Amino acid sequence: MEFAKFFTQAEAQRIHEASLEILENIGLLVHNEKARHIFAQHGCTVDTQTGLVKFPPQVVEQCRQSFVPKYTFTARDPQFDRVLPDHRPVVVTASSAPNIIDPKTGKERRATSTDIANIAFLINELPAFDVFSISVLADDAPKDQISISRFYPALKNCTKPVRSNTPTIRDLEMVLELGYTIAGSKEAYLERPFINHHYCPVVSPLTMDVESTEAVIYLTEKGLPVYGTIVPNAGLTSPMSLLGTLTMGNAEFLALACLLQMIRPGAPNIYAVLSTVADMRTGAYASGAIETGILQMAHTMMARFYNIPSGGYIGLTNAQTTDAQSGYETGMNTAAALLAGGDLFNMGGLLGGLMAFDYAKAIMDNEMAMMLKQVKRGVEFSEEGLCLDLIKEIGPGGSYMDALHTLEHMREVAFFPKVAGREMRAQWAVSGQLTARDRAVEEANRILSKENPARFSAELDAKVRAHFPNLVAGDAKWEA
Amino acid sequence: MEFAKFFTQAEAQRIHEASLEILENIGLLVHNEKARHIFAQHGCTVDTQTGLVKFPPQVVEQCRQSFVPKYTFTARDPQFDRVLPDHRPVVVTASSAPNIIDPKTGKERRATSTDIANIAFLINELPAFDVFSISVLADDAPKDQISISRFYPALKNCTKPVRSNTPTIRDLEMVLELGYTIAGSKEAYLERPFINHHYCPVVSPLTMDVESTEAVIYLTEKGLPVYGTIVPNAGLTSPMSLLGTLTMGNAEFLALACLLQMIRPGAPNIYAVLSTVADMRTGAYASGAIETGILQMAHTMMARFYNIPSGGYIGLTNAQTTDAQSGYETGMNTAAALLAGGDLFNMGGLLGGLMAFDYAKAIMDNEMAMMLKQVKRGVEFSEEGLCLDLIKEIGPGGSYMDALHTLEHMREVAFFPKVAGREMRAQWAVSGQLTARDRAVEEANRILSKENPARFSAELDAKVRAHFPNLVAGDAKWEA
Repeated sequence: MEFAKFFTQAEAQRIHEASLEILENIGLLVHNEKARHIFAQHGCTVDTQTGLVKFPPQVVEQCRQSFVPKYTFTARDPQFDRVLPDHRPVVVTASSAPNIIDPKTGKERRATSTDIANIAFLINELPAFDVFSISVLADDAPKDQISISRFYPALKNCTKPVRSNTPTIRDLEMVLELGYTIAGSKEAYLERPFINHHYCPVVSPLTMDVESTEAVIYLTEKGLPVYGTIVPNAGLTSPMSLLGTLTMGNAEFLALACLLQMIRPGAPNIYAVLSTVADMRTGAYASGAIETGILQMAHTMMARFYNIPSGGYIGLTNAQTTDAQSGYETGMNTAAALLAGGDLFNMGGLLGGLMAFDYAKAIMDNEMAMMLKQVKRGVEFSEEGLCLDLIKEIGPGGSYMDALHTLEHMREVAFFPKVAGREMRAQWAVSGQLTARDRAVEEANRILSKENPARFSAELDAKVRAHFPNLVAGDAKWEA
Repeated sequence: MEFAKFFTQAEAQRIHEASLEILENIGLLVHNEKARHIFAQHGCTVDTQTGLVKFPPQVVEQCRQSFVPKYTFTARDPQFDRVLPDHRPVVVTASSAPNIIDPKTGKERRATSTDIANIAFLINELPAFDVFSISVLADDAPKDQISISRFYPALKNCTKPVRSNTPTIRDLEMVLELGYTIAGSKEAYLERPFINHHYCPVVSPLTMDVESTEAVIYLTEKGLPVYGTIVPNAGLTSPMSLLGTLTMGNAEFLALACLLQMIRPGAPNIYAVLSTVADMRTGAYASGAIETGILQMAHTMMARFYNIPSGGYIGLTNAQTTDAQSGYETGMNTAAALLAGGDLFNMGGLLGGLMAFDYAKAIMDNEMAMMLKQVKRGVEFSEEGLCLDLIKEIGPGGSYMDALHTLEHMREVAFFPKVAGREMRAQWAVSGQLTARDRAVEEANRILSKENPARFSAELDAKVRAHFPNLVAGDAKWEA
């Protein structure tokens, strides 16, 4: 497929050059000392008093030489490994919401490690999801186990790639230790590092933080894949201009990409963004707005300019329930990003922006992701597919209903939805007038009432629990 | 903007050639005698016994020479004239549903001429709609006024272009007479023919009907613009193959396009389709399926190959209420079609495929159409838009919230939705937990409770009613 484009190659080049001008003349405020040191070592000018780092253009251009075009998400089960852009669209849950819509009460509450276990099981079962980015925080986590209380239930119940972040290096080391334990040894883990790391080290405008930057440096030094998302918010942390926000965000991406390449040339990376425009009527974080999709499209064009996989948080909704808004915000922005060439879609399961996980939304997002994958497939060209013989055989005025060809191909041509209803109204009226939400809740119940085939073996689980005393239970437990 | 593409130029050429093969070797069954005569006169082979018409490739290629790249929808008020593709996306209501969801009872019932008056008023007020294709039939129409009972309330309450079809030439002539009366004279009307004509003369597979074909010939001979929509349904009336359905539909488009060019070389036309894949589990008409969008994208690519404006019925939903499904089916398919280069979107107001008009859906579709128009605008490139001076002024770690630039540009950068909520959950919980549907119903009420500024003057109305005795009242009357 050829992708939709806003810019000519010359315009993309100018946006790149403007980003270089920003990095050269305005610079990046870097709060992490190690990062400042790395930047200085590689030719940047560092003001040790203010922490301001300025990038000569040739330094950035030098780093660009070692950008690589692929990024792999490794899974506990190798059949679920996913490579960007080969497996595009790679569909990921949106992550780290503090809350969940309780499936029993319908009310929002703090999420727990048991919720993570349930969600991990669900995502493992939903065919359109490629990566489980741990959807929620765990309010029941022991204070010294904040992060493994999330990764343990996730990994225990899901054999697809698991992705998330950690607040501290100590937490990150515990999570890696969990990985080693599951893999059997550190060496075995490093061969297939099935914990996938993501941070937001850049705080717009043009600032690099301490802790997330530290994690990115730590992982990159160890040869483990990690990438970051850039999140400018026009009107608050970036210019009230789509092009201005794109350009500043692009400069921020380049700064972070340079850090990775300075530490380890050829380190894989994703050009990941969640660029938004604030709703200045109220200051609301409008992550479901169409401008989020437009900015995602524009960044994707720049990612192609650099030949780096692209994507990010796209398909979020500001809706507080799975109403029409939740459908069209997620649907329009993801379709737009896909056709602009986006590879990675953190699109699944959240309501209220990034605030709360909802099971019905996850089921619907799976369905929308299946639809996106159909669009990606598009219309494949082949001589046989033209069906000239069949069209002749059936002839003008004939029927294709009983043709053998129809029977043979009906399952492969169209996606058969579970959430979208296609009843005529008369049938619908007598069969309970179900909405898409009703059907999605039913489907979540159906899946989560089964046994989880992906669950850790008793043996593996005993080994993990022996290694980490006081671990949360981490088992899926469905009572809706 | 550069559009997304499935096909290379060589593949598009092959699809074109395969369509020529279909028209040459298989042919078109033409039930309308005048059409057969026209085809014969221009070099086609006509079997007078069967009505089968075969097209030598050079005949089609000859007709192609006079295809024109623009199509104009004329409005009663010239400011609302819309030209394809210049004003893309041109957003149109979906039309001719038999039923309406009653705004008072919420139940489906037969639609009436008063409903048409209300809908016309609403569409006139909703900024994203460019053309009012009369959404419903009028169950209260006198038997001899089937069509003017629809066109009169539509034209009386809407100054945007009004579009629909008629079942017979007699009805068509009455509708044109209505146009002459409103314009003041036949001559005045012909200068600005604000009734816009659309038919479905091709019945898949490869058949041309009697009545709609007659209307197309009638209008084209008179120099009035008219176009048709091609509606193959894979698995029932076309091959269970996206490419096969595209190719056969493309042949059907060419046959109809040839008829127009044979009658009047240079007659404007739209490559309009509603190509679908049947849900073979039940035989359901899956007009909301993602395959409808994919086929629309593919046809759009062929339309560009012929340099003809493109579009059709895109954005329909199979949902029976404005739930999430209604949002993502409409949203995803329209976004996909837009980025493939679609110009015309018959997307507004219907539920259950083409069965019932719903006010809330029309309001939501207006909002989605506003979002599509933002995507169309995309990210405009300019040196000033890069905001380099502003980024320098605010600096790393600064805030854009109070910048004069933010104040000056906030209304032009982002679309401010009325249906999509952006409250935080705590606010949402205490302010009635409104869904998108609730807000859309409120907005319809707000608009339709006003006076209609577009309504005919008393003088004009008296003139029209004197000319057509026993006309329906045709006035908007809102009691929700």
